[in-house]
Amino acid sequence: MSINFSVEQTDGSARLGRLETTHGVVETPLFMPVGTQATVKGLTPDQLHSAGATMLLANTYHLTLRPGEELIAELGGLHRFMGWDGPILTDSGGYQVYSLALSCRITDQAAIFQSHIDGTLLELSPEKAVSIQESLGSDIAMCLDECAPFGSSAGKMQDAARRTISWAERSRACHRRKDQALFAIVQGGMDLDLRASCARALAALDFPGYALGGFSVGETTEHMRTILPAVAEFLPADRPRYLMGVGRPQDILAAVACGLDMFDCVLPTRNGRNASAFTANGSLRLRNACHKRDSTPIESDCQCYTCRHFSRGYLHHLFLANEMLGPILLSLHNVAFYCRLMEKVRQAIRERRFAEFASVSLARWETRL
Amino acid sequence: MSINFSVEQTDGSARLGRLETTHGVVETPLFMPVGTQATVKGLTPDQLHSAGATMLLANTYHLTLRPGEELIAELGGLHRFMGWDGPILTDSGGYQVYSLALSCRITDQAAIFQSHIDGTLLELSPEKAVSIQESLGSDIAMCLDECAPFGSSAGKMQDAARRTISWAERSRACHRRKDQALFAIVQGGMDLDLRASCARALAALDFPGYALGGFSVGETTEHMRTILPAVAEFLPADRPRYLMGVGRPQDILAAVACGLDMFDCVLPTRNGRNASAFTANGSLRLRNACHKRDSTPIESDCQCYTCRHFSRGYLHHLFLANEMLGPILLSLHNVAFYCRLMEKVRQAIRERRFAEFASVSLARWETRL
Repeated sequence: MSINFSVEQTDGSARLGRLETTHGVVETPLFMPVGTQATVKGLTPDQLHSAGATMLLANTYHLTLRPGEELIAELGGLHRFMGWDGPILTDSGGYQVYSLALSCRITDQAAIFQSHIDGTLLELSPEKAVSIQESLGSDIAMCLDECAPFGSSAGKMQDAARRTISWAERSRACHRRKDQALFAIVQGGMDLDLRASCARALAALDFPGYALGGFSVGETTEHMRTILPAVAEFLPADRPRYLMGVGRPQDILAAVACGLDMFDCVLPTRNGRNASAFTANGSLRLRNACHKRDSTPIESDCQCYTCRHFSRGYLHHLFLANEMLGPILLSLHNVAFYCRLMEKVRQAIRERRFAEFASVSLARWETRL
Repeated sequence: MSINFSVEQTDGSARLGRLETTHGVVETPLFMPVGTQATVKGLTPDQLHSAGATMLLANTYHLTLRPGEELIAELGGLHRFMGWDGPILTDSGGYQVYSLALSCRITDQAAIFQSHIDGTLLELSPEKAVSIQESLGSDIAMCLDECAPFGSSAGKMQDAARRTISWAERSRACHRRKDQALFAIVQGGMDLDLRASCARALAALDFPGYALGGFSVGETTEHMRTILPAVAEFLPADRPRYLMGVGRPQDILAAVACGLDMFDCVLPTRNGRNASAFTANGSLRLRNACHKRDSTPIESDCQCYTCRHFSRGYLHHLFLANEMLGPILLSLHNVAFYCRLMEKVRQAIRERRFAEFASVSLARWETRL
């Protein structure tokens, strides 16, 4: 088996899990920093380890366009290429084809799109998405899905769900790599019946893990919070559950409460580059003049490299002076914040006090995050 | 005494030295990476330590404009502000006033200039330069000098040398900080007699260290190489000798051969940001397509983080994808290259084979650096 997953403890619907991969064991609930182009922007693998990251996500769409999966395979595979020896999950490329490509047309056969880099017309089929990810050599690969935009018609949502199921079957049929697990993605938008039938159909195909797609694509927090508890129930209890592209700390806590296990999001690094820091008491904008003379770290109880060595005043200076070290140090803190949050989440589940932990955390963030 | 300097060994005119400062002991000949705005661009202090850096340079001009020396003093001084616990040298700000300011007028009293950030009219006197550096709290401060451009008339060169001596006297008279050493700067352009008289006048004032200014400002390599041996002789033998703003590896070797001890230059980080790597066999342009499929590191015998973990192919990808990690990893390698070069220089002097070492190194670089 390419992965082994076991639920070690539950607390309500929240689960503490253990995920064994070809590149090591990680605990869930788990947050994966995003390394779009085979690098988490601005951070070295050493810095990611020190921040507590255990598993990364990389984007198939970007890597197949540049530098290409054959090149990465030739240079020893994605792990060796980017110098990361822990597990890596790659997405299928579908979401980026729909959101980043210059144009995109979807047929039952494949998605035909234009590269956002040079306009080349390309095709991404379920088989191609599997083949690219097999070349990359990630520990977990994702089936190509169709993610209809939030607000699409019922007919379009049904089409997307049907195609997603059919593409999952085709992906499974062509997937060969034994040291890589292939996860399926449940679509269906905000329609509970559609989600349920999509989840049932995919569960019958017996994938080693399942993801929820179509969240964090324009729906409101209320929409997500409303249907997530029900949708999570549709997923097999003995398989890891991955909520793609989510999200803010409060969204992750809400999803953990529903039994979700894995998360990824660009927020820690994107906000870090934009001088915004996550803290247990809400976010801090380091460009604000109020930080100019502040000798305290971002968070006094944070053990990250940034908080152990630098003041808010210094970080403020770095951003005003347009120095690269500002984005670097803040990305590092934000990744450490997310990883520490997940460590606290796991500890709370272990001690069966997750609901209380989540409620206290949310109250501290509510007004400022 | 704010510093202690001893020459441990000589090999021809080359010297192996030991420099004790308030923030630790460093060996010379020594290269100082440049942390213009209280950060060596793109690198954390941890990364600098790991690359072998022992002492940094920071720019008084930039720091007095932003964030201001009072703020840095309030936040605990420059070392604490930038998280660097080793020794720091600050320049006087003069060179930047002459080269970066929007306008500049020099009188015997002071340099009056316009900030390149917002056009504000400001004054930098010898007393002000000392006062700023005392607030910053560097281990070594520099006297304000006048650096006439290469090619200035003899009269202008004489004026600059005269003013530099007078300003050194005034700097010395107002310098109070006991944990900081104040170095004087010898000017005089390419005129050996003027250099000699400037050096004699400054030596009579008994500074703990001496710098050579006015190199690396437009003169040719031949100009520098021609007069450096003679000029170095004018400097007191028992004091550290610092060649400001120099330079390329071959220039540093030539200067060490003349008895110079300290160097600084932005080349390792600037070239690193521009995808150019220093190696023992010349420079490598990592954007070049020839590196695309190259699985070897920049230098196979380099122990820096970059060379231990990443291929030229990966670095090529990072630069083509405009990823921050490219400049970071290449700056790190280049700083490590310079620090390792200086370690080899010291070892060669220790074993009295510096001339041979320099000659072999230069032959390997000659065609490609």
